[in-house]
Amino acid sequence: MSRTKIGILTVAGLAIVAMVACRGGRQAGRPSASVESLMKARGLNEADVVAALKTYTPTGKPDEYYMFASGGHSGQVLVIGVPSMRILKYIAVFTPEPWQGYGFDDETKRILADGSPKGKALTWGDSHHPALSQTNGDYDGQFLFINDKANARVAVISLKDFNTSQIVRSDLIQQDHGASAVTPNTEYVIESSQFATPLGNTYAKLDNYEQQYRGAVIFWSFDRDKGRINKEKSFAVEVPPYSQDLASSGKLASDGWVFINSFNTEEATGGTREGKPAIESGASQSDMDYMHVINWRKAAEVAASGKAKPIKDLRVIPMQTAIDEGILYFIPEPKSPHGVDVTPDGKEICVSGKLDTHETIYSFEKIKGLIDAKTFAGKDRYGVPILPFQQSIRGQVEMGLGPLHTQFDGKGYGYTTLFIESKVARWSLSDLKVIDKIPVHYNVGHLSIPGSDTEHPDGKYLVALDKWSIDRFMPVGPLLPQNLQLIDITGEKMQLLYDLPIGLGEPHYAQMIRADLVKPWAFYKPVGINPVTHDKDPFAVTSEKEARMERRGDGVHVYMTAIRSHYVPDQIVVKQGDTVHIHLTNLEQTKDATHGFAIDSYNINLSLEPGKTNNVTFVADRPGVFPFYCTEFCSALHLEMAGYLLVEPKGGTESSAAVR
Amino acid sequence: MSRTKIGILTVAGLAIVAMVACRGGRQAGRPSASVESLMKARGLNEADVVAALKTYTPTGKPDEYYMFASGGHSGQVLVIGVPSMRILKYIAVFTPEPWQGYGFDDETKRILADGSPKGKALTWGDSHHPALSQTNGDYDGQFLFINDKANARVAVISLKDFNTSQIVRSDLIQQDHGASAVTPNTEYVIESSQFATPLGNTYAKLDNYEQQYRGAVIFWSFDRDKGRINKEKSFAVEVPPYSQDLASSGKLASDGWVFINSFNTEEATGGTREGKPAIESGASQSDMDYMHVINWRKAAEVAASGKAKPIKDLRVIPMQTAIDEGILYFIPEPKSPHGVDVTPDGKEICVSGKLDTHETIYSFEKIKGLIDAKTFAGKDRYGVPILPFQQSIRGQVEMGLGPLHTQFDGKGYGYTTLFIESKVARWSLSDLKVIDKIPVHYNVGHLSIPGSDTEHPDGKYLVALDKWSIDRFMPVGPLLPQNLQLIDITGEKMQLLYDLPIGLGEPHYAQMIRADLVKPWAFYKPVGINPVTHDKDPFAVTSEKEARMERRGDGVHVYMTAIRSHYVPDQIVVKQGDTVHIHLTNLEQTKDATHGFAIDSYNINLSLEPGKTNNVTFVADRPGVFPFYCTEFCSALHLEMAGYLLVEPKGGTESSAAVR
Repeated sequence: MSRTKIGILTVAGLAIVAMVACRGGRQAGRPSASVESLMKARGLNEADVVAALKTYTPTGKPDEYYMFASGGHSGQVLVIGVPSMRILKYIAVFTPEPWQGYGFDDETKRILADGSPKGKALTWGDSHHPALSQTNGDYDGQFLFINDKANARVAVISLKDFNTSQIVRSDLIQQDHGASAVTPNTEYVIESSQFATPLGNTYAKLDNYEQQYRGAVIFWSFDRDKGRINKEKSFAVEVPPYSQDLASSGKLASDGWVFINSFNTEEATGGTREGKPAIESGASQSDMDYMHVINWRKAAEVAASGKAKPIKDLRVIPMQTAIDEGILYFIPEPKSPHGVDVTPDGKEICVSGKLDTHETIYSFEKIKGLIDAKTFAGKDRYGVPILPFQQSIRGQVEMGLGPLHTQFDGKGYGYTTLFIESKVARWSLSDLKVIDKIPVHYNVGHLSIPGSDTEHPDGKYLVALDKWSIDRFMPVGPLLPQNLQLIDITGEKMQLLYDLPIGLGEPHYAQMIRADLVKPWAFYKPVGINPVTHDKDPFAVTSEKEARMERRGDGVHVYMTAIRSHYVPDQIVVKQGDTVHIHLTNLEQTKDATHGFAIDSYNINLSLEPGKTNNVTFVADRPGVFPFYCTEFCSALHLEMAGYLLVEPKGGTESSAAVR
Repeated sequence: MSRTKIGILTVAGLAIVAMVACRGGRQAGRPSASVESLMKARGLNEADVVAALKTYTPTGKPDEYYMFASGGHSGQVLVIGVPSMRILKYIAVFTPEPWQGYGFDDETKRILADGSPKGKALTWGDSHHPALSQTNGDYDGQFLFINDKANARVAVISLKDFNTSQIVRSDLIQQDHGASAVTPNTEYVIESSQFATPLGNTYAKLDNYEQQYRGAVIFWSFDRDKGRINKEKSFAVEVPPYSQDLASSGKLASDGWVFINSFNTEEATGGTREGKPAIESGASQSDMDYMHVINWRKAAEVAASGKAKPIKDLRVIPMQTAIDEGILYFIPEPKSPHGVDVTPDGKEICVSGKLDTHETIYSFEKIKGLIDAKTFAGKDRYGVPILPFQQSIRGQVEMGLGPLHTQFDGKGYGYTTLFIESKVARWSLSDLKVIDKIPVHYNVGHLSIPGSDTEHPDGKYLVALDKWSIDRFMPVGPLLPQNLQLIDITGEKMQLLYDLPIGLGEPHYAQMIRADLVKPWAFYKPVGINPVTHDKDPFAVTSEKEARMERRGDGVHVYMTAIRSHYVPDQIVVKQGDTVHIHLTNLEQTKDATHGFAIDSYNINLSLEPGKTNNVTFVADRPGVFPFYCTEFCSALHLEMAGYLLVEPKGGTESSAAVR
């Protein structure tokens, strides 16, 4: 393009000459080409132009929705703006992350330690299904829950500061996939085990699978006021050693119930080297597995009544008790079931079978009728009553190859991903017919529509979470990004708007919430807030005058301040072997005035957002001179925001007072 | 927008009705609105439309450039497509990252251990300045180097697989900022210390700063064939305890020389609690600091001649030897110098002083003339000859407030960031006058233009790396993203095109390279490639028939395969206390057919790209039943790709053979 050519942009009969002007902080540049020549130069077609204009979000303009996507085995949660499809934050959850100081300060080290089994420090997780907290069946914008499939854990994230505040685990189960889901008022966060193990992590041979291996569904009790899961008030329900999977909470008509699918009623455990089938084929023999229908409100009453038995650290309702008390029922579901999703009115439950070509639509009214009338088709081998399949369903949707998950737009349509076809199908909830399909690229797993699991979905956008990207982006070596595709679902036909590569992590599921429902803090106030308790930190200092060093019984305490662009104190002299406690408060009360604090060689980096107090404890076991400095570019003299840690060697010739 | 309205898109007099059609995998949706109504609905102005069309990159279309940006204290490197500004990959470098398996398999654990000081495991770094490898002064697309400021380290990344293959450190220095830079044929990677310490990390009081503290510039010798830095062939030059900063290599006219700026000739060390000035003010007293002019080719000869002395693990040319041999010279540079950048023709060196309003343009011809004539203005307190300032420069550019860094477009212009003004200035190299300024948002640090540090810059785009974003994006709590702004520099006026939030990490500097110059592998071939050596792994198996378990003196060896969607073997039974070596090969030779391998509770996750062999060793110290499974969604039956690790308890009643 020529440097001197002044373009004229003519749009829909409207001639516009863009002016060079600065309006409200936005620079309106002089276009150097017409739209037509731009389209030609960049190979854009008409649909591309529409897509560009539906997604491009100019500097300073906010997005319409937050998308919270799990990071998969990166162990994090991604916060993405929609429709611009820009990643606004990676929230560190199960994996230490130094930019946020997560896992490097005392506060977050404790969160990770509390979430690790005794004697094992876990430094990663496989985050799968985020769940936004709900009030009366709609998102309230207060909390986000996310599970770790690899180690059967659930984390709590506060949407005040977008930080992880708790990780809970139990010794009961070893692995989950079907978490997190919440009940309509976030009374419980639901976690179901996937691969069965002996409950309580005892040892038992695989030969004893049927006798000694079990699954469990944990109902984690959430204390909204404290923003924490209360383990003592939580309980579990023992279930057969089938692979329990995703859960979907009943609402309105089906309030008080939860629906969990499963696979592997075959109880395959592999044995590929011994000539037995791999689990992939061993678990795919039966035409039907069982949807687990659980009356969670009844289960909570039974647990409270003392009929639950403690196994390790959790109260568990034994399977037989669950059967006797009318808590647990099964319904057949075809074939290799995966997704289970309750419709916004709570009346129907939609199940996808990976190896079936249909979506099966269960009617809660029918299910409830069958349960009330005790109309069962039999019992499974563990004695769980089985409801008759045909009498439980309203019908089936002829869907296509590899249906996985379904979301709802609140306008009468369901949307189901087809992994094998690499498509998303739109279908009518009223007549159970597919009316549109759109190709995605490629191998789509979950999909997300704002509020799909609430009473009021907000069907403007759909995001397809594609597992393979293959040829969609520039090559970056053998490990390829995932592809999150934004699709406009307001029109008669679905329109692909944007491909977002995910270059860190493998998102499994995402939830979207309208932007105005989330009201995060701009900074911590007043000065001295602990980032986990959200109260004043006991070690906070609120002015440079209070900054000091004290030698006490448990080591050297450094009460330290940070403000542009220096620390007080900035010279710390200790003796080799000293335990050092640094209590560092960022005195700033300006948005974005974050400071960092790194100590060379000591593997320490803190992130000090404005007003935050952070604590870090370490043993000064390495003698020498160690610069420390601010790791966040805070001002023109940021590079000079530094100091020295001097560790006097044991038995050295130095004799100055250790703490000056 | 109405579901039924069919829009007509009229652009520059050209009426287009978009058709619903699938062409080459791209879905051309039916636009549901005209451009005019889209602009109105989304509040876009004319410049926004141009920006959208200059950046929007439809599905399947590649970008024009790779941008490699440091991740700051996230310890990673970001790979970003330009102009779409999408993050294609986070390359794990200094920080363990489980999605990539980095720091979780034996191979990458060793990289991190080799890069850690003895007895200290470092699990983060502060990555600052990426440097692409060069051949004859231009990017060759083979390697990327990146430093860790916090711990004075340099990493090597292979652009075959976009993976870190080496981290080097020395006991000589404690902290670097001015790295990485390369010489024109990548003979050396240059790293200069920032905060002075006693060389070799001995202890010395701050009172003895002038006598015992020193800086050093390390020249890491790079072996291109092996793709590794060779520590034995590397050397350092001792320099005064001023804070050495960024380096820029001479080229063409100035080939064989390197230019390094510095600050803190005042030798301030803080003392805020003792009533002394913080370093920020203590180091900002003098009007001039010293640019270090180093003849690296001469230094290499001197090091090879045996005149360097070993300090800990590196050969060091003593400061006096560097002076005597004509290796080290100083030139005054105003005030609080920060950026130093050699022009593409190698004739001039451009220096920004943070507290000066000018950019100072040094002439290498003049510098060389002064050195040859031994025309010095004196010596600094350590005896280093000082060249006269006025006789060294061609002139100064009246720039504005807070100039930091400069890049070149190859068309006669320099571009300098102004931190305090939050602007980028375009200025003419011929008449040293600013001709355009563009506001950025906010507090810009570095900027990047493709090839700026080569002989042939490619000045189409400029990216401003803004440190604060404040109000540019939706709020995500107290810790805000950074903002990377893409600017079109082809026109008469610079035009802002795109704001990219960085939600993980704080990029400091980035280099951009034309996409066709990088040729990464699609997968590892043939099957069984070790990801670090890029040769066949000694433990690789290439078919399921070779899969086996062997008990040997050093523990149980499991030779394992992965292919959609099962492992062989998938049942591993060991005894508590056994050391287990898993040698896992992904048999796939299909692009994107990556498998994972996670073991519950054992903190293990591997990423197995197609054809890769990975090894992981652990002690089975925890008895019980531990499911393992594939963490990468690989097929419709991915969820069933799993198996069991059984760890028989010590002294338990189980008596079956440990290895079946």
